[in-house]
Order: sequence, then C-alpha cells, then structure tokens
Amino acid sequence: MTAAPFAGQSWGMTDTPDTAAAADIAALSFEAAMGELETIVRRLESGDVSLEESVALYERGHALRAHCEARLAAAQARIEQVGLGAAGQPAALFDRLLAVPQDPRARLYEAMRHAAIGGGKRLRPLLVCAAADLFHVDRQLSLRVGAAVEAMHVYSLIHDDLPCMDDDDLRRGKPTVHKAFDDATAVLAGDSLHALAFEWLIDPATHADPFVRSELVRELALAAGPAGMAGGQMMDLMAETSNFDLPTVTRLQQLKTGALIGFSVEAGAILARIPAEGRRPLRGYARDIGLAFQIADDIMDVEGDEALAGKALHKDADAGKATFVTLMGIDRAREQAGLLVDQAIAHLAGFGEEAALLRAIARFVVERDR
Amino acid sequence: MTAAPFAGQSWGMTDTPDTAAAADIAALSFEAAMGELETIVRRLESGDVSLEESVALYERGHALRAHCEARLAAAQARIEQVGLGAAGQPAALFDRLLAVPQDPRARLYEAMRHAAIGGGKRLRPLLVCAAADLFHVDRQLSLRVGAAVEAMHVYSLIHDDLPCMDDDDLRRGKPTVHKAFDDATAVLAGDSLHALAFEWLIDPATHADPFVRSELVRELALAAGPAGMAGGQMMDLMAETSNFDLPTVTRLQQLKTGALIGFSVEAGAILARIPAEGRRPLRGYARDIGLAFQIADDIMDVEGDEALAGKALHKDADAGKATFVTLMGIDRAREQAGLLVDQAIAHLAGFGEEAALLRAIARFVVERDR
Repeated sequence: MTAAPFAGQSWGMTDTPDTAAAADIAALSFEAAMGELETIVRRLESGDVSLEESVALYERGHALRAHCEARLAAAQARIEQVGLGAAGQPAALFDRLLAVPQDPRARLYEAMRHAAIGGGKRLRPLLVCAAADLFHVDRQLSLRVGAAVEAMHVYSLIHDDLPCMDDDDLRRGKPTVHKAFDDATAVLAGDSLHALAFEWLIDPATHADPFVRSELVRELALAAGPAGMAGGQMMDLMAETSNFDLPTVTRLQQLKTGALIGFSVEAGAILARIPAEGRRPLRGYARDIGLAFQIADDIMDVEGDEALAGKALHKDADAGKATFVTLMGIDRAREQAGLLVDQAIAHLAGFGEEAALLRAIARFVVERDR
Repeated sequence: MTAAPFAGQSWGMTDTPDTAAAADIAALSFEAAMGELETIVRRLESGDVSLEESVALYERGHALRAHCEARLAAAQARIEQVGLGAAGQPAALFDRLLAVPQDPRARLYEAMRHAAIGGGKRLRPLLVCAAADLFHVDRQLSLRVGAAVEAMHVYSLIHDDLPCMDDDDLRRGKPTVHKAFDDATAVLAGDSLHALAFEWLIDPATHADPFVRSELVRELALAAGPAGMAGGQMMDLMAETSNFDLPTVTRLQQLKTGALIGFSVEAGAILARIPAEGRRPLRGYARDIGLAFQIADDIMDVEGDEALAGKALHKDADAGKATFVTLMGIDRAREQAGLLVDQAIAHLAGFGEEAALLRAIARFVVERDR
C-alpha cells in the first residue's frame, strides 16, 4: 500500500475538510477508509483523471488519510496506554510478582524472569486489556489477568522447548530456559508459572467478587488443561506420526493456541460480569483470530525470517507434520487467514469505536513478522 | 509387639470387664492402652508374677486388648468408609474424571490414568477426608478436593521422575510414566493433571460457596507453586551441590512435601468454612506430621525395602544430599519422628473421638513401609 501522495502534505487545501465529507468519512471503518484511499491513489497514479477530478480526489484522499491516521494514532495511543509495549506495565508487574527471594529458590525465580520478562508479543495480555476496555474495566484488574494468562503461556513455551519436547534453543530472541539454566530448572520454572497463574488470578486483588474470580480460574484451567492447550500439545505430538486432515488440524490448533487466546478475550468480559450469552460475539472473534494467528504462524514457519521471529522456523516441514500450509497450499492459507480476520472483525459489529483496538489486533495477528 | 497372649481367648473371665475398669480403660488413648498392654505382656512373659497377680494382669490385658481392637476397628471402619482403600472412591472418581476421549488425546489420558489410578498411599485425600470429617462435611465434597490434591501430587511425581529430574524408572510399583509412555507425554500428563486439579477444585460441585472454592484454589496454588512444592523441589536440586544445614533441610521439606500435606488438612476445615484462626491446631498437626513423614522417608531411603516401597531407594545417599538422617543420625531421626507424631496428636487435644482417624494417620506416617 502506498499512501505517500498524501503523507504530510496539505495540498493547499484547508486542513479541516468540509463538514459533510467529514461526517461521511468519520463513519467509515478503518478498512473502508483505507480501501477507498488506495483506490484513489491508484486512480491518481494512472494519470487518467481530469484536473477537476484530481483536485476532488486529492481533497477526499486527504480527509481519508487524516481519518485513518487518527484511527491509527488512537489505536497506537491505546496500545501505549495499555502499556504493553517493550517497557510496559506487564513487565513491571512481572518484575514485582517475580521478585527474587534471597534463598536457594533464587535460581528458580531467575529462570521464570528470564522467560517471562522481555521479548514476546504480549498478545494475550493485550487481548485481555482490549476486551476489558470494551466494558470499562479497571486497568489494574485486566493487567493482573493479563499477567496470569501470560504466565500460563510462558510456562507452556518453556516446557514445549525442552529437549524431550520440541528441543528448541532460541525463544523470543534469547536462549530457551533449559539452555540458559538447565532442564530440571526449566521443568520447575514452567510448573511454578503454571501454579502462579492461578494464584494471581484467585487473589482478591484481581476482582472483589469471588464469583468472577472463580469463573476466571475455571475458564483458565479448562483452557490450559487436557481439554485445551495441553490436549492440543498432545495432538501435536501425535501429528508427527499421524496423517491429520484439515478438520483435525483445525481442532488441534483450536486447543493448542485457540483455547488460551479465547480465554484472554473472554476474560475481559468476565471481569465486567458479562454473562456467557453476552460473550458470544467475543468468543466468535477469538475463535477466528486464533485460527488466523495459527495460519499466519504456519506461513511464517515456511516463509519467515528466524532473526525477526526470534525462534527456530521450518520445523513443521522438517518434522513432516500436516499444517494449514501443507493442507491448503500457501496461497489458500493466506486467503483463509484474511477471511478469518474479516470475519473476526464482523463479530465486533455490535461495538463502536471502543472495539478499535480489538479490530487492530485482528489485523496484527496476520501481519506480524514474529 | 506381641499381643498373642490375649488373642481370641477369654481365659474363663467374663467378656465384659467390671464397669470401673472399663471406664478407666475407655478413657485411655490408643497409645496409652497399647503401652500398658505391652508392659503387661512383658511382665507375664518374665514368669516372675504370682498366680493372683497374673490373673489380675490377664484380666486387665484382656480389657486393654478389647479397647485397642475396638479403636483399631473403628479407625479401620472409618478408613473403609472414607473409601480410600485399594478399590476406594478416589479410584472411582479418577476413573470418571479421567475418562479417555476417542480422539488423538487418548494417549494423554491413558498416561494420566497410569499415574493416578492404582498404587499410592492416597495419604493426601485421606487427610482431606479425615479433617473434613471433624466438621461433618459432605463426603462428596471432600472426595473432590482429595482428588484435586492427589492430582497435584501425582503431577509432581511424574515430573520429578523425568530423566532430567530424578530419573526414576519405578513408582508405586509400576514403571514411571516416561518409561511406560515417553518423556514428552510425561511432561504433558503432569501439566494436564496440574491444570485439572484447579479445574476440579473450582467446579461448583466442589462447594456451592465461591468464597470457599476461591480459598481452596488460592491455598492449593500457594502450596503447589514456588512458595511451596515447586520451590521445595528447586531447593532439592540445589541440595545436590550445596551443604544444607538442618534448618535449611527442614525448610526444604516443609515446602517440598509439607505444603501439600498442610493444604490437605486445612482444606477439610476450609470446606466447613472454619476461619483461618480456628484452623491453627490443624496447621500445627499438619506441620508436624509433614516433617515426621519426611524423616520417615529419609529413614526408609536408608533402611527400606525397594520391593515394598515400589520405588528406587538409597538415592539421597548416592547423590550426597543432606537429609534428616545424615544430619541427625538414624537414631535421633527416629526419635524426632516419634516426638513429632506425639506433638501432632497433642494439637488435636481439643477434638474428641472424631479426630481418631487423624491420630491414626499421624502414627501411620512413621510406621508405613512404603
């Protein structure tokens, strides 16, 4: 996409477009505005437009760009506000929650900190906070839930990287825990983060209402256990010696990565005491971005850059495992990921501007390079 | 101990001893009655007693034996009632909770069942039920909590037995999970049981009151994580290369095995909504039997029979680790275990006959052979 013709130029037009156009554009979604903007750019680039028409197009394009930039800035600001950037609040929260004790357990905490602090997309905490924001949940609460789900995710990475599992040396651009420490410490660091996720979640600081805390624990336990993540990992082990078809690979991924992503999104609504029925659109959104995320992962496994990804790639192909890419081909996989993102965003139709961040995340999961 | 002189004989005396003696004996603790009985047996065996005196001793001994047998039968009956024998309810509950799905996760469930069903002392579920019985908690509730704490214990055994940890081939008289299956499946079976423990605990079937369920989850998470069991396991790893003193080994064991035993006992009271203050005697009891249990384990590691224990022994000595036996010597260790059992039972002074099972368990933890 080339937005350059409109970048940083006012083209002698007023910076405030006329009110009718502004109202029209303000109602446009980010995608619709970007789509129209790209069409305008193509038309202008073709050169096959009258002067009068090109002025109108420039004017319209300028307003569209301003609209998109404002949307992006708002999303960016929210991401910053959420504090899930490199130096964000989850790191600070982890730093506090994983303070190293001055006793022989110090090495255990160092190993947990190595895995949990620094690096990583923080997608799951971001989803918790973005979903919680829909319902104006106190950020302190959603950050705690975000830390819990990230601890659960990080524990699964530590165990998954063990020599007896995927045997990976690199994760988030750093040596894996068993490389930086040792296998036994990695097992215990994973086990510890697993228990801590529940400890943090059930703490009254997470929510005053024990019904809410109980529901969070129940949903996280289901998402993490054999009916969720661990079950998906088991299916993944079996995939090495089985010929899984597309429905089975889909189910595998829904358990392995989808369940925890689903929890992250739904947790935001649970914090706001939204009943299960009212969480249906969010469940649909989570299911779709979860699959899109995994398809993007499979594409990255084939096409990605290891230095950017911060982990070993091309492993599935080497292991002869069925993936979305081997089953659908890379083009159909990419198309499918795009469709899932559109579908995920469509689930949010009942929400307004407050869902901008969730929409941006949906696009991010397929556009990321790591 | 030889109780043979009194076994199955009435010695021409009335089977109902006179009321005064009966009242005196009825007030005796099991230990006091057994102690007196053994003294009588030794006196009779010495032959150095008058006929008159020996008749009186036989009469007294007969009443003491009846008293002890009744106590034992009551405890046995309670153990059976609790259903924690070889074919008891926890096995049935595990059988139901770990039903094997007809999909590629079947192997994961088979591995969990291999570890969780059959074998094992079931000490922790027994403690939950025995403590809950003090407060007349519905057995269905305490059994669920017992299953959760046993799942947590079994997960720790599976991970502890891994080649990169203690590298054990035998557990509860069966091949360890990684031997019967493979290392990766063992990691995931442990992880799955870990998550299931919390899933079962937080289920409304465990208790209708979410405050109670929340407290159970919180206490179990603390007992299992780096401030409890996993932290103790880390200290145990460090013990291989450190020279721990007695306070440090005590702390290690309080975390590694004591925390989960403490949870088991306290959970019975939490189910009955007994506030933290009122649980103090039970915490004292649990702390003492936890340490006595570990001292007995260390003694068994030196003196035990591997076939009976169902696991490899003599490992600590080979690893050069400091244990209660290496630090105190076997005689002082044995004496200390006995003192701790007495002290544990003394914590239960405020309870009557309803604590008979907890008292019996306290003796069992040092007298077991596995």
